[in-house]
Amino acid sequence: MPSSPSPAPPLRLGIAGLGTVGIGVVKIVQRHGPLLARRAGRPIEIAAVCASSRHKNRSADISAYGWEDDPVALARRDDVDLVIELIGGENGPAKATVEAALAAGKDVVTANKALLARHGQALAEAAEGAGRSLRFEAAVAGGIPVIKALGEGLAGNAMRRVMGVMNGTCNYILTRMESAGLPYETVFEEARQLGYLEADPELDVGGIDAAHKLALLAALAFGCRVDFDAIELQGIGAVSIQDIRLARDMGFAIKLLGVAQMTGRGLEQRMTPCLVPETHPLAQLDGGTNMVVIEGDALGQLVLRGAGAGEGPTASAVMGDVVDIARGLRLPVFGQPAASLVPAPPAAVSAAAPWYLRMVLLDKPGALAKIATVLGEAGISIDRMRQYGHDDAHAPVLIVTHKASSDDIRVALDGFAETGVLVGEPVAMRIEEV
Amino acid sequence: MPSSPSPAPPLRLGIAGLGTVGIGVVKIVQRHGPLLARRAGRPIEIAAVCASSRHKNRSADISAYGWEDDPVALARRDDVDLVIELIGGENGPAKATVEAALAAGKDVVTANKALLARHGQALAEAAEGAGRSLRFEAAVAGGIPVIKALGEGLAGNAMRRVMGVMNGTCNYILTRMESAGLPYETVFEEARQLGYLEADPELDVGGIDAAHKLALLAALAFGCRVDFDAIELQGIGAVSIQDIRLARDMGFAIKLLGVAQMTGRGLEQRMTPCLVPETHPLAQLDGGTNMVVIEGDALGQLVLRGAGAGEGPTASAVMGDVVDIARGLRLPVFGQPAASLVPAPPAAVSAAAPWYLRMVLLDKPGALAKIATVLGEAGISIDRMRQYGHDDAHAPVLIVTHKASSDDIRVALDGFAETGVLVGEPVAMRIEEV
Repeated sequence: MPSSPSPAPPLRLGIAGLGTVGIGVVKIVQRHGPLLARRAGRPIEIAAVCASSRHKNRSADISAYGWEDDPVALARRDDVDLVIELIGGENGPAKATVEAALAAGKDVVTANKALLARHGQALAEAAEGAGRSLRFEAAVAGGIPVIKALGEGLAGNAMRRVMGVMNGTCNYILTRMESAGLPYETVFEEARQLGYLEADPELDVGGIDAAHKLALLAALAFGCRVDFDAIELQGIGAVSIQDIRLARDMGFAIKLLGVAQMTGRGLEQRMTPCLVPETHPLAQLDGGTNMVVIEGDALGQLVLRGAGAGEGPTASAVMGDVVDIARGLRLPVFGQPAASLVPAPPAAVSAAAPWYLRMVLLDKPGALAKIATVLGEAGISIDRMRQYGHDDAHAPVLIVTHKASSDDIRVALDGFAETGVLVGEPVAMRIEEV
Repeated sequence: MPSSPSPAPPLRLGIAGLGTVGIGVVKIVQRHGPLLARRAGRPIEIAAVCASSRHKNRSADISAYGWEDDPVALARRDDVDLVIELIGGENGPAKATVEAALAAGKDVVTANKALLARHGQALAEAAEGAGRSLRFEAAVAGGIPVIKALGEGLAGNAMRRVMGVMNGTCNYILTRMESAGLPYETVFEEARQLGYLEADPELDVGGIDAAHKLALLAALAFGCRVDFDAIELQGIGAVSIQDIRLARDMGFAIKLLGVAQMTGRGLEQRMTPCLVPETHPLAQLDGGTNMVVIEGDALGQLVLRGAGAGEGPTASAVMGDVVDIARGLRLPVFGQPAASLVPAPPAAVSAAAPWYLRMVLLDKPGALAKIATVLGEAGISIDRMRQYGHDDAHAPVLIVTHKASSDDIRVALDGFAETGVLVGEPVAMRIEEV
C-alpha cells in the first residue's frame, strides 16, 4: 500500500523458458523498471532464468541473471519468489517445474494452456493448499485480459455463454482462404512457411490449442472443473473455399469458434467451425487477431479483441499476473476455491441452433423433394434454401434451417444418405446465434 | 483464501442511492448470494440503504435492510463495511458521503464519474491515507471492465493511447441520424422522449459526461493526476447529417471520440466529434453500446465493447469492485500511489492527423485555387478532394488532408475566411488514425 512507511522488498522472478514470450518478459522488466515498481508498490526483478541453451543468440541480454539448466532447480532457488513457466507442453518439465515451485512455496505464472487444460484441477488444489497463486492470463487469447475479466471484473454475473476465436493461425487460414480465393491446402502451406504453425500443426488446425483455452474459460465462467475431454472438437481441415463463399452469400462468415454455454441440460463445450452473422464483430475478425465474447446475466454481451499471440502481447499478459502477485493479490485459481468446483455436467445434446447444410444433388425430378421430406420428418424446418446454377448433372443446394438440435441434424444427415439423390457427403455447420 | 479454516465474516454493504444502478446492485446480491460467496470467499450482504424516498415503488424489496435518510449517516454506520455511492453529482451529498465513508475507515465503490473527474486526486489521497479502497469501475463505460484492464491486466505496458466512445446517448443520436437520415434536432428530441438524456442534456450531447470518463482513463493510463479541465471538449450539436453522409462517402464514420494520448509534447486529451475509418470497430459501434480502445507498447491494440449504461451492466461493474474488496484486494486508486501521480503536462498542440474539411464555395473561377493556395501556404497537403454537383451558385467541396497539426488547420481556416470565396463557415474535423 502507498501508505507503507518502509520500501517493500522486491519481487524476484525466475523465468523458465526463454522463447518468444520469455524474452518478451525480460524486455518489459528491463524497459519498465520504475514504472512497474510504482504500479506494483515494490521493485520487480529477474533473479534467474533457465532455457535449453545459455549462449544462444537472443534479442535481450540475460547475462546479469542467475542461470539454471534445470527448470525444476530454478523453481527451487531461494532467491526466486515467483516462477514464470514458459516451457510449454502438458507434461514433462513444464508440469514438474510448476509442481516444484508450488511445493517450494512460490507463486507461479504460466502461459501453458495445455498443462492447465489437462492438470488444472490438481494444480489449482496444489496452489491453494500451499496458499500460493497460480495465474495464467497469458494462456488464453494472448494480450487480451480475459482471465481477469471473467474471474474478477464480471464476478457479479452468472455467466450464460463464453465464445471465442482463440487460434490466430486458424483465423488467418480461414480469412486468407476467403480474401485470396485459395483452397485450404495452399493456405496451410503458406502458413507453414510463414512460421505460423506449431511443430505439430494439428495443435492449431485440429482446434486442440483453441480447445485448451476454451476449457480454461469454461472452468472460470461456470465454476466447473476443467474438462478438456468434454469438448466437442473439430478442426478447420474440412472447411472448403466453396463453403466460405456460400456462407458469405447467405450473410455469414465461417470461424473456428469455441463456445461454452450452460444450458438446462448441462454444460456445452465445443470448438468447431461455425457460421456467425457477418455483422457481428466475430465475423469481422481478420488474420491473427483473437476475440472473446462473454455473456453474463447482468452484463449482457462483452466483446474483447486483441492480439492473440506474439512476444509483446503474451508478455503483457504474463506481466499483468506478475504485478497482481507483487501487489499481494491472492485469488483462487479458477475464481472460486478448487475444492468447490463441480464436475461439469456435460450436455448430451447441444442447444438448438440454425444450421447451414450444403449438398450436391443429382439433377433429377424429385431430388429436392426427397431432401425436404427428410428434413420435415426430422422435425427441421427450412429458413432459406438456394439451388445454384450448374453445368452438369450435379445441383449444388444450400439450406439454412430454423433452429434444430444436433441430434435432429444427425437424423437428417442419415436420412439424406438413404435417399440416393446425394452426390458425395453433405456439409453441416452450426450457425451460432450471437 | 480457500485454505482458511474458519468462515470469513460477511462484507456488509451500505448502498447510497437506489436509482437504476442501486436497484441493480440489490438484485444481484439477492439473486446470487451463494455464487458471490463462493467467488468472494465470504458472504456479501446488504446492511443498509439510503435514498430520497423510502416507500417509493421499486422493482426490488428493500424492507429487510436498515434505512437512512441521510447518506452521510449511512456512510458512518457501524454495520457497514463498504459504502456504494450511487447518488451522482460532482459535489453535494455524493462527495460528503464518500468523504465520510473514507474518514470512517470504510471502503468505497462509486459509479460517480463527475465526482472523481473533479475531486479524484483529493479523494485518492484520502482513501490511500486511510488505507482504504476507492474503486470506480462503474464510472466508466458501464459493464466494460476497463478500469480493471487498464489498472491491473495491462500493468506491464507503457500506454500510448486510450480512446473511447463512452456516451451511449451521443452514439445513439449519431448512428440514428445516419440510419434514419434525420437531422440532429429531430433525433435529439426523439432521444429526449425515449428518456435517453440526462436532466441537463448538455452533460450528454456537450460531451461532458464522456469527458469525465476520459479524464479517469487518462489518469490511470498515464500515471497523471485527473485533469478534467485539460480536456479539449466539443459536443455533437454541430454535427450535421450532411457531414455524416459525406464522411461515409469518403469511408469514415463520425463518432464522439475521446482520446488521451501521450506525445513528445505532453498529454493530449480531447473529447470531440472525429472521423474514424469505417473498417475499424469504433466506426461499427451502433446505438448505446460503448467501446474503449487501449494501446500499450507491449500489448498493441485492445478493443473492449459492451453496454455502456443500464441497470444490469452498471451493477455488474459495481459488483466486480465489491467482490475485489471482499477478496481483500487493495490497490492505489489510480493504479499507482496518489502521491506519485504527476500533474499531466498538457500538450499545447495536438498530434498531427489527417483532417476532414467541408466548405461551400462561391461557384466562380479561381475559388478552389484560392482554397488550395491557403492550404499550401499553411503547409497542409491534400490527400483527397471532391467537389459535389450543385444546382445553385454554391459548390460544396470536401477535402481530406494529409497529416496536419491543429495549429496548421487553424491557420488555414483563418486564411479561408480571408479569401472571400466561402459561403458560411467551413467544417473541420480530425480524422483519428486507428
